[in-house]
Amino acid sequence: MAKAHAVTQAESPRFARHGGRLDDARSHYPDAPTPWLDLSTGINPRPWVPASFDFDSGPLPEMSSLRRLERAAAAFFGCAPEQVAAVPGSEVALRLLPFIGLPRPLVAASPTYGTHREVAEHAVSHAALAEQADSGGTLLLANPNNPDGLLRTHDELLALAARASAASGAVVIDEAFADVDPSISIVPHLRKAANVTVLRSFGKFFGLAGVRLGFVVGNATVIDRMRALLGDWPVSTQAIIWSTAGYSDAAWITKTRTWLRAQAARLDALLAAHGLQAGGACPLFRLVEHPGAWDIFDLLARAGILTRPFDAQPNWLRFGLPADDAAFDRLDRALARG
Amino acid sequence: MAKAHAVTQAESPRFARHGGRLDDARSHYPDAPTPWLDLSTGINPRPWVPASFDFDSGPLPEMSSLRRLERAAAAFFGCAPEQVAAVPGSEVALRLLPFIGLPRPLVAASPTYGTHREVAEHAVSHAALAEQADSGGTLLLANPNNPDGLLRTHDELLALAARASAASGAVVIDEAFADVDPSISIVPHLRKAANVTVLRSFGKFFGLAGVRLGFVVGNATVIDRMRALLGDWPVSTQAIIWSTAGYSDAAWITKTRTWLRAQAARLDALLAAHGLQAGGACPLFRLVEHPGAWDIFDLLARAGILTRPFDAQPNWLRFGLPADDAAFDRLDRALARG
Repeated sequence: MAKAHAVTQAESPRFARHGGRLDDARSHYPDAPTPWLDLSTGINPRPWVPASFDFDSGPLPEMSSLRRLERAAAAFFGCAPEQVAAVPGSEVALRLLPFIGLPRPLVAASPTYGTHREVAEHAVSHAALAEQADSGGTLLLANPNNPDGLLRTHDELLALAARASAASGAVVIDEAFADVDPSISIVPHLRKAANVTVLRSFGKFFGLAGVRLGFVVGNATVIDRMRALLGDWPVSTQAIIWSTAGYSDAAWITKTRTWLRAQAARLDALLAAHGLQAGGACPLFRLVEHPGAWDIFDLLARAGILTRPFDAQPNWLRFGLPADDAAFDRLDRALARG
Repeated sequence: MAKAHAVTQAESPRFARHGGRLDDARSHYPDAPTPWLDLSTGINPRPWVPASFDFDSGPLPEMSSLRRLERAAAAFFGCAPEQVAAVPGSEVALRLLPFIGLPRPLVAASPTYGTHREVAEHAVSHAALAEQADSGGTLLLANPNNPDGLLRTHDELLALAARASAASGAVVIDEAFADVDPSISIVPHLRKAANVTVLRSFGKFFGLAGVRLGFVVGNATVIDRMRALLGDWPVSTQAIIWSTAGYSDAAWITKTRTWLRAQAARLDALLAAHGLQAGGACPLFRLVEHPGAWDIFDLLARAGILTRPFDAQPNWLRFGLPADDAAFDRLDRALARG
């Protein structure tokens, strides 16, 4: 691996805050070959494609079309439509969590997605989460967790919710990456856990992050307050039309779940061939733990491949899925130069 | 006018809450001729059309493209880019006003847009607004006002801001309809009034309400807090690409301003021919004051034409602009049956 690198951990907080920082990559690595290969996010690189790109953005989206979307989403999530509120991205939902009447403080399970730490009053380790539940407040965790792909069982989550409930507390579960496997989501069990709120994302599994669409799933109070914060037109016409069709496209969903697992296995094998052990339960991203993680980041960036390093965990490097043979080959060749 | 009507004011709060309730219109008037002619909003019926409908919604929108949009919007508004934050619709911005650190209480100038009343702690008449400024808090008003089209001068607004400032108060001016005339907006004068925040809407003048895009224009604290509430991906790829081009399309903007004024004058003449006096300074909507306003609403709804009545002002009926000769003719014929 290269010893001197253009971007150190301290110099480059942006890369380590969120994925998708191609702008910063271009300016830090102006000599890298283009186009950049972006493996810095957990977004499906083979998006769902609508039957028609023709939709009328002129009028305000009608309430009936928004409710139809929420019905399609609820059927996909495994709950009732009245438990679901559409939001302009799960990122916005996370940031509005402090304003929907959940018990305070908001406590994030760490390590986790950057925004969880930003919105939470404080953070505890995943190991300390169950004990934290006894103190009340609202626990915020991702399942599967980002970036390590840690997966919790329904029993674990329901036990956590019961423990929080006994202390008048609540739990928010960010299922942004749960679409990859229908057995992951706690949503079908929410009737047993009224103090649990779930966040879902449309863009990651469907590969359409630019549409900006997510959902809050929860009890009537949570849904009412989120709707009141956003009003009658929370999401765009494009978001409504595309996702209503996407959530109803069972054949594409099944095929894509299979494809993502195969791509993740192929990525794991490629990384292993270069001495990098990838882990985690989510096929949309793979986490490598390696003492030279920042050097590998730099090596790949010089080859025009953006991955995702982490401020607080300098040994971690997260890889999104390459879309095709060409992307796998490019990653393989870049790692071979290390 | 018809004496018995299918929808009374008391029965139909939805029509009187917001425009654009075509769903409700269809279910209340199932026998009306279709397609419905929607004159219930203040949205330009001839939208700006992009050169290409091809944009990639797969990846997350890049920060550089968001900043480029904010530069284009700032150039159009007449301010610096750092005074501007993009939001997913001015409706969302209104609803988040209580959370960006403005002085409390939030006081709406009434009559006004329904959401102003919903987010404000209380309301005062427009006449009492200047006096209210002496009490501190944050004054919320629309300019031009909706639905009556009342227009305030820069001098009036700056005097109001100064009076609020003397009481450590602030002013929020909703300029959702200000694009129709470049002389309306207070934005170029905001450096003289640091306690003024302005809201802008993309969808109304550009006729693309389904894109969900608006802007907050204000001081650094307001911009920072709004950005923190929404995160790094506040608006969609479609919103960024279309509006960056739209705000830079000076020829279309000039032509559209002229066209809107001509259409509004034509609508005024048509209404006058039926004994209805329309008023207001905004060509995107015309307000009629008439003791039979709800009967006219009903008459037009039976003809498949949706207009905008008001709960608290049963003598008011607001008309959006017909798009073309056919729409003008249909309105003319429907009113002739009254």
